[in-house]
Formats: sequence, structure tokens, C-alpha cells
Amino acid sequence: MAVNSPLPIAAELKPVAGVEIGYAEAGIKKPNRKDVLVMKLAPTATVAGVFTLNRFCAAPVQIAKAHLAAAQTSGQPITALLVNTGNANAGTGELGLSLAHQTCAALAAQLGVAPTQILPFSTGVILEPLPAVKVIAGLPQAVAGLKADNWYHAAEAIMTTDTQPKAGSRTVTIGGHSVTMTGISKGAGMIKPNMATMLGYLAFDAAVAQPVLDELVKYAADRSFNCITIDGDTSTNDSFMLIATGAGALKITSVEQPEYAQLRDAVTELSLFLAQAIVRDGEGATKFISIIVEEGANVEECRKIAYSIGHSPLVKTAFFASDPNLGRILAAIGYAGVDDLDVSKLNLYLDDVWVAKNGGRNPDYKEEDGQRVMQQAEITVRVKLARGAASATVYTCDLSHDYVSINADYRS
Amino acid sequence: MAVNSPLPIAAELKPVAGVEIGYAEAGIKKPNRKDVLVMKLAPTATVAGVFTLNRFCAAPVQIAKAHLAAAQTSGQPITALLVNTGNANAGTGELGLSLAHQTCAALAAQLGVAPTQILPFSTGVILEPLPAVKVIAGLPQAVAGLKADNWYHAAEAIMTTDTQPKAGSRTVTIGGHSVTMTGISKGAGMIKPNMATMLGYLAFDAAVAQPVLDELVKYAADRSFNCITIDGDTSTNDSFMLIATGAGALKITSVEQPEYAQLRDAVTELSLFLAQAIVRDGEGATKFISIIVEEGANVEECRKIAYSIGHSPLVKTAFFASDPNLGRILAAIGYAGVDDLDVSKLNLYLDDVWVAKNGGRNPDYKEEDGQRVMQQAEITVRVKLARGAASATVYTCDLSHDYVSINADYRS
Repeated sequence: MAVNSPLPIAAELKPVAGVEIGYAEAGIKKPNRKDVLVMKLAPTATVAGVFTLNRFCAAPVQIAKAHLAAAQTSGQPITALLVNTGNANAGTGELGLSLAHQTCAALAAQLGVAPTQILPFSTGVILEPLPAVKVIAGLPQAVAGLKADNWYHAAEAIMTTDTQPKAGSRTVTIGGHSVTMTGISKGAGMIKPNMATMLGYLAFDAAVAQPVLDELVKYAADRSFNCITIDGDTSTNDSFMLIATGAGALKITSVEQPEYAQLRDAVTELSLFLAQAIVRDGEGATKFISIIVEEGANVEECRKIAYSIGHSPLVKTAFFASDPNLGRILAAIGYAGVDDLDVSKLNLYLDDVWVAKNGGRNPDYKEEDGQRVMQQAEITVRVKLARGAASATVYTCDLSHDYVSINADYRS
Repeated sequence: MAVNSPLPIAAELKPVAGVEIGYAEAGIKKPNRKDVLVMKLAPTATVAGVFTLNRFCAAPVQIAKAHLAAAQTSGQPITALLVNTGNANAGTGELGLSLAHQTCAALAAQLGVAPTQILPFSTGVILEPLPAVKVIAGLPQAVAGLKADNWYHAAEAIMTTDTQPKAGSRTVTIGGHSVTMTGISKGAGMIKPNMATMLGYLAFDAAVAQPVLDELVKYAADRSFNCITIDGDTSTNDSFMLIATGAGALKITSVEQPEYAQLRDAVTELSLFLAQAIVRDGEGATKFISIIVEEGANVEECRKIAYSIGHSPLVKTAFFASDPNLGRILAAIGYAGVDDLDVSKLNLYLDDVWVAKNGGRNPDYKEEDGQRVMQQAEITVRVKLARGAASATVYTCDLSHDYVSINADYRS
């Protein structure tokens, strides 16, 4: 199903010194499925995250944020991340908070740390009570199995409607030190800017001071997970966590340090790989679409237009049909909410094909050229606004019958 | 296909004194299909309209606006409305304007009036040149066939992907005078606030001064055509026109006149009927959903939340599946962009079933109650924000396999 997205190969996923991974089949929603994940961190690790902006942010998101803040004031580092699938623990009120706290307390007891040193994450159905008893019952198995080269299992353990695990590793040399980084992600629907039912975890073995890591996670998220959309739905549970284990030789204490930019770019590249993997495995996706809006007055208007195109069901069904019904793209640009847009200066390209020129059909445009591009599995839509020098890119997929099937059947 | 929407009965559609209707099969996109409509108005008629806010507004929309403005300064009344289907004449630049002008000039010549006395409207595919020659060739037939009781044919002549014509009549007594009103509408996809590929025409036989009619058309549109959404796509061509023929005895010269409120309410009621008919015939629709957001601080935030729910593909597929996966509604409320929303005070009802209480699952909520409501063809979602006294209502439909099929095949 996934668009041009080969399965990760377990042997190519590199252990990151300072991270051990365990998992369990806890039967949270279905039996015989990895649905509890524990990532145990070295005491030297720093952790930073970005979270959903949904006002109905889930209980685990609220707690993870609070525990991250507590770690910075108490000096007690984050010891483990605990992820469950099968239940989002969202829209669950006070009871949801209490149940999430119970799972943190149970894992903390087994690891001999304080409950505030655990970060909880959940993904799955909303508005149903978390079966905390099942999560807790799965913890001893997960803790007993902790080991460094479990990343492939970790990628599997966080899947929901994903058709394949998503993971990648990189080794880069920065300032003469080798840095190993490995990340996993999940998500296939309810994907939109400001995070989605999307979880991403990326660990590397450099030491990074907390303020630097806080900046790095935002930088990377804005250029990766915050640039993807499948259906415009922003989840209650989205989280992207960056873990600097401190187990390697590279140490970064300031964004001014020359090595920072190299690390930042490497982390961002792997984050984008993990984010794009989500789109490639989008629910029912048959096409991978990059939408580039250029020559805008500012980034915000470029993003508005890119998302307007990326969210349009009419545009997305046209991609599914490989039908160069490109007027739908113009319509989506027109209703994006950029009020003073002068469409008579606008140009639209589909890969190398110049479709619309100065706001109308390019006289040299031939339908068969559009048709040729539309049949590809990967397509770039490029809009030139002729208003300035800003640009933005958004990644999305098409809207197919399978999207409807998957989401009409999700709970059954 | 249409949800609880009986076919209009031709004999029940009342002629409106001062309007004559003719049509032709001009073969614009397909043969043997009514695709040109002429509505000829009495010289006493006043006309007012609201149009798409899409920046790529189509050539005919630009011209219709200009001609409406010209009529008010020149004193030459609008003589006829000319509608074609099969081609939207949008994204067509200067050539599109020229071709639309040619069609106006051709009809004006046949009716012996100035081209500025014609209002053009187009609906269909975007980014392709209008076959103006075909439209013009169809005009003699349309003009020759002009008669008062052609409203059913008019409703048929403006259909595109609609599965059935949409029309209704009302007779009301206002200030002792009988007023007859008949309207038609079309549209089935690309339907969203601020008009959609949606055309609506409503005529009645009272005389209404231009400033009053200008106000009335906005009032009625804001409570009807601007409250519907099918897929969130706002078309380049949407238009809703109100025609007061002046052929009857009622005369309204001011909004202060006591009869105005009665006329306004009757026009608004019929407009809402015509707008809801579009949703009921939404592409692939199997459910008709009313989304009522109450107790908001202002109308704008209520509309934001109602549209966020109404546009969510996850919510819409859940309705299609009759699956009470109601957490998806909470998620859509949460990402609607009302930043200071306190979700812990929020209540959610599905018809009479209290689903979410104070932001979490209502302890008394039973899945089978949600299931019962979800199986209905008509469902009301009610959200109470506990922030104030404002409210807003949006009408939408579900997202089904047929929506994808229709839009993946539209041009073929």
C-alpha cells in the first residue's frame, strides 16, 4: 500500500548507546499484537518534545509535558518513555489523567525511579477509558526484555492503522565525533500540521544541553512533522520526542557552537524521512505529493495555500484518479484565505509541466503532458505567487476508496 | 442517492409573474442534456446577488458583478440571466472574460437590450475554455421557448453532478398581498461556506427596492447557502441571486416597513430549503447532518467549530459507517482554532443522547444509544461550549465511497 516506501531492515537500524527498548503484547485492543513499548534512557540523557495543539489534548500528553517540565526543575532526569497503542486516553477527563498516572507509577516502581521520570504516550481510539490494568500487566515483560537493538520491534509496537513500521538510522561525523541516530514514527490518518496522530521518537548518542535540545526539536518538527497532511485532522495525542543520550563523545552546550548546525541538519533530515514515511503510508495513499509554494510575501501565506491544496478532497481525488483536473488546484489556491492575492500573476507547475500561466491556462499546456505527470507515484505541485521571496513545502497523499474503507471500519 | 429529499413535482412549482424561462441542449460537454438556461425578467424587476469569495472567481462572476453594478448606475434594469453548465469558465484569464462577454452580447441582441443587462453564470470544469460558440448557438432555441411555467426544466438545466433537480415554491400572504416565490438550486460537491459550486436563483413577485434587496440577499444567504458544507471546497463560480419581479401588489421600499420582516423570513426559509437540498444530494451522501454549536462567546467561534466538525474526513467517514466513534468529533472541536477553549466544560449530544459531559465521556452514555442515532439518515450533533450565548448551525453530509468515485471520475 505505501507509496515508494521500502520496509526498514531490522539489521540496518543501529542501536543508540544510552537507549534500551522493550515491548509487550498486552492485549489492549486486540490480542497477539505488540502494543506496549518502553524506552529506557541513560541517566545522562536529555529529552525534549513538541506536542499536539489540539485543545482536547490527551491525558498522556498533559502528563508528559508536566513531567518534562518537572525534570528541568527537579534535576531528576527522564528515565523512560512508555507508549501504548489501542487507546488514546483522550477525551477521558480526570479519570484519564488518573489512569495515565497509574501506568507511570507502575513503570517507575519497576525501574526504581520517581513517577515524574516517566513520559507516557498513547495512541488509538478516543473517548474510551484506558485499560491501564492491561498496560501495567504488560510492563514486567517489557522491562525484562530491554535491549539496545530492539528498534525494529519498537517501530512495530507503535503501529495502529499503519501498514508498515517506519524507522531509519543515520551515522554522521560531527566535529570529529561519530554520532549515531535512530528514529521511529507512526501515523497514517488524522495527520495535519501541528502534529497529528503521529508519534515520532528520535534518539542519538551526543550530549546536548536542555535549552539547545528544546530549540532543536522545534526546528526539526517545523521542517518535518509539521509539514505533512493526510486528511487535515489534527490528533489529540501527537508527540515528537528528541532524545540526546549523552553516551557518545560529542557534546553541544550552545546553539552558537559550530557543531550545532551540523547536528541540527542531520536530525532534521532524519525527521523529514520519518515524517514523509507517514505520508507514504497514509491511509489508502497511492500517490506521494510534494506541494511547494514559492514567491510568497511571507511563509504563513505560502503554508496557507499549500495546506489548502493539500486538504482539498477534490484535488486529492483527482490525484487518486490520475486525472489532470488542475482547475481544482487553482480553486483551492483561490479559497486559501490570502485575501489580496492577485491571481493574474500566478503560475502553476506539475513537475516540469507549466500548467497555468498568469492565472489562466498556459497556451502551451497540453493535456497529455499533465496526464503523464499525474500517472506517476510521486508528483510535485509548484505554485509561484510572484509576491515575494518566501516559500513553504507541504507533503501529502491522495484520497482513495481505501481511505474511506479504513476509516469507516477503524473500530471494528 | 439523495438523503430524504423527494423529487420536486413540476406541477407544484409555481410560475412567478415577471419571470419567463427557456432552455436549450447546446452540447457544451455532453449531448442530449439541457445545459443552457435563460431567465427573462420583467422590466420592473430588481436583482441582487452574493458571489463566491474565491480569489480565482470565474469570468462570469466578475461580469455578473460588474453588470449588477452598472444596472444601478445606468438605470437600465437587468433583463435576463444566462446560465450554462458543462464549463465553469474559471481559471481562463482574459480569454474567459472575452468569451463570457460574447455570450452576453449574443443574448442581448436577441432580446433587444444592452449586453450589460445580461448576467452570465457558468458551472462545470475549471481551466478549460468556454465553448461560447455552442452556448450562443443554443440561445435562439432557449429564447423561442421562454415561458412562465418552466421552473422544473430550469432546475434540470443547471444540474451538473446533481442526481436530482432541486426546486421549491411557496405562497405567502404579506400585508394582505399574496406573494408567490419559486427557487431552484444546484450543487453537489465543492460545497463550502462563502458559496460553493452552487447556484441558487429565487424569484418572487413583490417589488423590492434595490437597497432592501441587497440586504435581503445577504441575510438569506448567511442563513442558508453559507451554512452548508460537503467537502470544504469553495468553488470559483458560486452565486445566489434574488429576483423581485415587481409584478405583484406588495411593494417594499425600506427594511423598516413592517412587511419586510415577513418577506425576509419567507425568503430565508425557502433559501434554506434549497440549500439543504444541495446537502441532501451531496456527492455520495447517505446521511444529512445538522451541526449546532451553542453557548459560544461569539458566532464566529461557533462557526469555526461547526465547520471543523463538518469538514473532518474522520468524522464524515464515521457517519458513513454509522459508527459512534464520537471521539473524532471531540478531536475536531479541539483543533478548530479556538485557542482559549476550556474543553473541561464542554458537552456533546447526538440527537437526544448526551455523549460527552464536562469534556469527558458521560458516565451514563451507552454505546448502543450512540449506535441507535448513528444509524438514522438524519442526525443532529449539538455542542455546548459553556462560554456565552452565541450559536451557529452548519449542515453537511457524510463521506462515502461514492464521493471518491464521483470525483475521481468527474471529467471522464
